[in-house]
Amino acid sequence: MSRPADFERMWRDLAPIGRSAASGGYFRQPWRAAELELRAWFREAATARGLRIREDPFGNLVAWWGEPGAVGGVLTGSHLDSVLDGGAYDGPLGVVSAFAALDLMRAHGVRPARPLGVAAFVEEEGSRFGRACLGSRLAVGAITWAEARELVDRDGVRLGDVVAGPSGAEPALLHGVETYLELHVEQGRGLIERDAAVGVASGIWPHGRYRYDIVGRADHAGTTRMEDRADPMLTYAMTALAANKQARLAGQRATFGRFDVAPNGTNAVPSRVTAWLDARAESEERLAALVAAVERQAGERASRDGTTVTVTAESVSGEVRFETTLRDAVALRLGGVPVLPTQAGHDAGILQAAGIASAMLFVRNPTGISHSPAEAAEMADCLAGAEALADALTGLVGEGS
Amino acid sequence: MSRPADFERMWRDLAPIGRSAASGGYFRQPWRAAELELRAWFREAATARGLRIREDPFGNLVAWWGEPGAVGGVLTGSHLDSVLDGGAYDGPLGVVSAFAALDLMRAHGVRPARPLGVAAFVEEEGSRFGRACLGSRLAVGAITWAEARELVDRDGVRLGDVVAGPSGAEPALLHGVETYLELHVEQGRGLIERDAAVGVASGIWPHGRYRYDIVGRADHAGTTRMEDRADPMLTYAMTALAANKQARLAGQRATFGRFDVAPNGTNAVPSRVTAWLDARAESEERLAALVAAVERQAGERASRDGTTVTVTAESVSGEVRFETTLRDAVALRLGGVPVLPTQAGHDAGILQAAGIASAMLFVRNPTGISHSPAEAAEMADCLAGAEALADALTGLVGEGS
Repeated sequence: MSRPADFERMWRDLAPIGRSAASGGYFRQPWRAAELELRAWFREAATARGLRIREDPFGNLVAWWGEPGAVGGVLTGSHLDSVLDGGAYDGPLGVVSAFAALDLMRAHGVRPARPLGVAAFVEEEGSRFGRACLGSRLAVGAITWAEARELVDRDGVRLGDVVAGPSGAEPALLHGVETYLELHVEQGRGLIERDAAVGVASGIWPHGRYRYDIVGRADHAGTTRMEDRADPMLTYAMTALAANKQARLAGQRATFGRFDVAPNGTNAVPSRVTAWLDARAESEERLAALVAAVERQAGERASRDGTTVTVTAESVSGEVRFETTLRDAVALRLGGVPVLPTQAGHDAGILQAAGIASAMLFVRNPTGISHSPAEAAEMADCLAGAEALADALTGLVGEGS
Repeated sequence: MSRPADFERMWRDLAPIGRSAASGGYFRQPWRAAELELRAWFREAATARGLRIREDPFGNLVAWWGEPGAVGGVLTGSHLDSVLDGGAYDGPLGVVSAFAALDLMRAHGVRPARPLGVAAFVEEEGSRFGRACLGSRLAVGAITWAEARELVDRDGVRLGDVVAGPSGAEPALLHGVETYLELHVEQGRGLIERDAAVGVASGIWPHGRYRYDIVGRADHAGTTRMEDRADPMLTYAMTALAANKQARLAGQRATFGRFDVAPNGTNAVPSRVTAWLDARAESEERLAALVAAVERQAGERASRDGTTVTVTAESVSGEVRFETTLRDAVALRLGGVPVLPTQAGHDAGILQAAGIASAMLFVRNPTGISHSPAEAAEMADCLAGAEALADALTGLVGEGS
């Protein structure tokens, strides 16, 4: 079995799905055509390997080598969805590497003492229904279906009208799973700086999404004197600059990347601006302080502008520290690769918080850029990642001969 | 003939067309269902009065009392389209008042020595194809069809695919027209401050629309350090604040009301922001200085942010001074009503610039607010406006008995 050729073939099969010819980026939003095609690909890849496919009523998939649901299960994988105009690697690299690792283990004659599952969690990015890691949260019960089914996408479609949801009779998808090991493209420059192809995650910064609803008063852009206006665009603009400054000074992260304005006419002062703050910090206390500082500056500006600001925390994820024993075992087995934190949320963080011992492998990203068409990885590093994943998983499932 | 009842009936007929139940505002974009219904209403109102309807290949309508195209024609009217989520009065008040004035003149036995036309110019707001006063510009040749047909709406639809355009054989819609008198709801507080129901316009401030294309680099909102970003949102935010400040200090107008961001994801640093500056000043020199100052500040911020800014003037309208003799005659006939400038563009400004002697009547707006669902006018003031229009038009067409 030619390992690089298999990996490259899988990668080539995925390359055109959901790709924008204009930007070269990917639009793989959950339950839309491109993402459904990716899931069909997943089922084919699993079936071709003789794996047993389990799917929960939310769209999460696991393909098992061994007995699904048996105690002590080891899970690997990632997600297939992308942000809007995202890169090729964020998510799919972990799924393709999982199948490739399984191929390698079989080629090396490994006979697992525990079941090994390849997972694809749905809506990891939250790019459609606004809740990051929605699939894994549903799988571990970190969000209830009663809450999730009311989430609405940008077209006003309810999640409950897209997905049937549980009947109550299904077995839990992650029953018996004790360990999760997710491989992911690195989303920063940590491995470039450490000159390593592969690394292990120590933990995930706490982070959250906060919706700013800023309400003013629509007016004619020509006839209304500047001093008679209540323009929410000004409140927003000052808030976006304040968020950037606060985060920059403190070595944290704050971003306004999503934005909506009404009525969105050139010759009208807006009546309303809605914008989303993405904030991250190295501790929960510092995150809370950052978010409070931005909200305070927004409120001060609003009272000058005659507007009102309402801030709603749409999702907040606490700090994740990956299980130390597992992390150290993986790093040791891989010959002492670097251990580094990440500011990005991952399904592994959700599973770890739910009591499943979790760890992550990162593959070097030569641009350091992610959530962008410019996201990249060298094929040699990807193959090194799949080999490292096979090696680590072999250690976790028990080696046969 | 019960004059108030006729006016109120016409007003009631228009009230539900294109109205949003959510906001109470109007969505009457050209060549969409609501606006087509308004045009059907116009034809019915004209036919019921025995007027002769002429339509040009762009969608402008004129209903003639007397011989269409005869030399010395007097035109009145306004437009039927609205901004996105606009008010009920901006445009339709002038058209309804025109029909009501014609009714009043007939009731008073006026027999015009010149033809009198009621006009409805299309796409006055530029809310669909981005060019304000598009219909009147096409009617007077201030924009060529070759240029206009390439305009594209937000859905990517070309104007040339919506409207057939001229065959070359049509007579010019405004042939013979020497005078235009447009009634419009006031869009500021000038008549409130002067305690008058009706006023006359002196002129229109020069104004323009400028598209800002700000390009940065998409990145992950969590993992990318603040100092490694090229975030166009920051350049935009500083530009919006700078525009407001420049205009405020100089007693001018600058507004960013329309905005687009890509990829518009919560957890991605944007790759691109496109925003539209609406700028107005009391002279062309001051407008140019205002626009240059905003562009300079945007450029300075862009070099700090690592982004690029390209500014495109999408439409610029020079200063309009309405014909003094006509303006004074109208004001005198109406018993010395106030004469005041406006910062809003109007079809009357386009016709005046094209050599048709034009004037405007304003009707008091008790909120001073326009381009908003909160735009208002008292029925008594509207009826006073229609009476003043009838009186002024009687003076212009020559009185019979």
